[in-house]
Amino acid sequence: MVKTAVYGSGSWGTAIASVLAGAGHHTYLIGRHSDEIELMRRKRENVHYLPGVFLPDNILPTTDLTKLEADAVFICVPSHAVREGARRIKPYLKQDCIIVNTAKGLEEGTHLRLSEVLAEELPLMPLAVLSGPSHAEEVGRNMPTAVVVSASDKQTAERVQDLIMTPMFRVYVNLDLVGVELGGALKNIIALCSGAAEGMNTRDNAKAALMTRGLAEITRLGVALGADPLTFSGLSGLGDLIVTCTSQHSRNLRAGRALGAGKPLDQVLKEVGMVVEGVRTTKSAYELSRKIGISMPITEQAFKVLFEGANPDKAIANLMMRGKKHEYEPLVSFES
Amino acid sequence: MVKTAVYGSGSWGTAIASVLAGAGHHTYLIGRHSDEIELMRRKRENVHYLPGVFLPDNILPTTDLTKLEADAVFICVPSHAVREGARRIKPYLKQDCIIVNTAKGLEEGTHLRLSEVLAEELPLMPLAVLSGPSHAEEVGRNMPTAVVVSASDKQTAERVQDLIMTPMFRVYVNLDLVGVELGGALKNIIALCSGAAEGMNTRDNAKAALMTRGLAEITRLGVALGADPLTFSGLSGLGDLIVTCTSQHSRNLRAGRALGAGKPLDQVLKEVGMVVEGVRTTKSAYELSRKIGISMPITEQAFKVLFEGANPDKAIANLMMRGKKHEYEPLVSFES
Repeated sequence: MVKTAVYGSGSWGTAIASVLAGAGHHTYLIGRHSDEIELMRRKRENVHYLPGVFLPDNILPTTDLTKLEADAVFICVPSHAVREGARRIKPYLKQDCIIVNTAKGLEEGTHLRLSEVLAEELPLMPLAVLSGPSHAEEVGRNMPTAVVVSASDKQTAERVQDLIMTPMFRVYVNLDLVGVELGGALKNIIALCSGAAEGMNTRDNAKAALMTRGLAEITRLGVALGADPLTFSGLSGLGDLIVTCTSQHSRNLRAGRALGAGKPLDQVLKEVGMVVEGVRTTKSAYELSRKIGISMPITEQAFKVLFEGANPDKAIANLMMRGKKHEYEPLVSFES
Repeated sequence: MVKTAVYGSGSWGTAIASVLAGAGHHTYLIGRHSDEIELMRRKRENVHYLPGVFLPDNILPTTDLTKLEADAVFICVPSHAVREGARRIKPYLKQDCIIVNTAKGLEEGTHLRLSEVLAEELPLMPLAVLSGPSHAEEVGRNMPTAVVVSASDKQTAERVQDLIMTPMFRVYVNLDLVGVELGGALKNIIALCSGAAEGMNTRDNAKAALMTRGLAEITRLGVALGADPLTFSGLSGLGDLIVTCTSQHSRNLRAGRALGAGKPLDQVLKEVGMVVEGVRTTKSAYELSRKIGISMPITEQAFKVLFEGANPDKAIANLMMRGKKHEYEPLVSFES
């Protein structure tokens, strides 16, 4: 029998634990706060973070880090907590345990992908990444969801696919680790811009264009960093982008709307009251694009609005009025 | 001075005429019904099909086909009317006039793309195609929109780009004519399926997955027919898909919802009361995919629900329970 553990007992950790339990695995759900864990055990429900989802007997909420001695450990903490989390769990891991990261983002300052952070902290352990359009509220309720798992080797990725795929949680393998991780992180820039466009009373045509051209430019950056362009058209890129840009729950979208309506950044961040990943990611992506010489016109305008006080209307005009272009550099030559 | 004409005075024809007029061109807007045309002239508004949009003096509504003697003629009729329209306008066209098709679909029975239909009817004329996420209501109101123009030669495409690009109507060139036309036609299958998923009370994760995997399978079909995969990630593929799957005005989405809620096809078509392009396109794409041996699991399930009375719940289960897969055949090998 396979033993699994989930590190992080928020909404997403609880949802992942419920999928693993549904796949028949004995799953430890590891949190930090003993009162919350105690409540979960007693109520068979994560009352604070995933209310209304019943936790079956084979989910075992605990604060006991020795339960990390499992065949696979899923990391379900926010992106800025991944490095510290890895240090904390390291002493308890079995040598051949697979580490599956589910957080999305780039490390601030270093711009490292999170699998690179994990590789620094947990060298020699097999690492995988799970990503894609997956609201915890739906996954926990066993509603149809499809995601990708990535790893730098096929065996690790397919082991995770075998482990967690269920009739309502479909898992595809994609071995383009760079693309999978960048898509999940960079999509938040576009969600922020889509929100801003909505806040400025542009409508469906503009939003569809922003999402499409936004995906084109994060694809350009990704390819320059070694990714396959097709990954960005997949579940971890496009799929996650669609969910983030159309869900009313997205913080990035909400923050963007307020920015588009003319509010300054500090006020917006105060009002949203939580981390808006897209803001930091815009800065990281802009810096990266400058460093390696990749054109990212939407990210550049977002950077100027966010950090240099540029006017959002001017930003839209700048995007619309650039020179006449071809849509992309074709893979195939069609010219006669 | 460039003289342009728009053949078809519905909402889309009127919107295109307003862009051309905004770009400074003398534009004949050609309709069939003299009373409607007369009303448009008098009111400077298309009261029936694009109310609230003012038509400036350089738009000249007319029923006079001799006004087709222009430098560029934009075809703005429904897809099933393109062949007949081409026959009707042929005697009036100048020899070097560019024909720009804006209708989206495949010809029934023959499965021909509309530029192929036009090439049969108007051989030797330079042909282009305009496509992308562009609700007429927004284009007519000069709200930000981005589209692509395609042609089999660069000169023709760039001439159309020069002709119609304005500060609020951004035009990219994409020389992959096959991909541009197929994306615009095949996206309606996915809109229908997205609607069906909504009708079955699945939610955001499932819809994002359907749109993403749907785009993946129409890309597969397109590539087999000679398209560049990247075109499907562009404005005429993904961009149009986003607008069609998220707009409440989409007939395909509405019809899909009713199908997902369990209503039979004939009743749904009666209720929607207009052509639902996705239904015919599902049949064409399914037949094509079988003929050339391309796997299109979503289209296949849609075909079975639409034409063989299959149960939509069963269709979702069939999609979720297929064998374990890799997300795509990578362009680059990442395997170690």
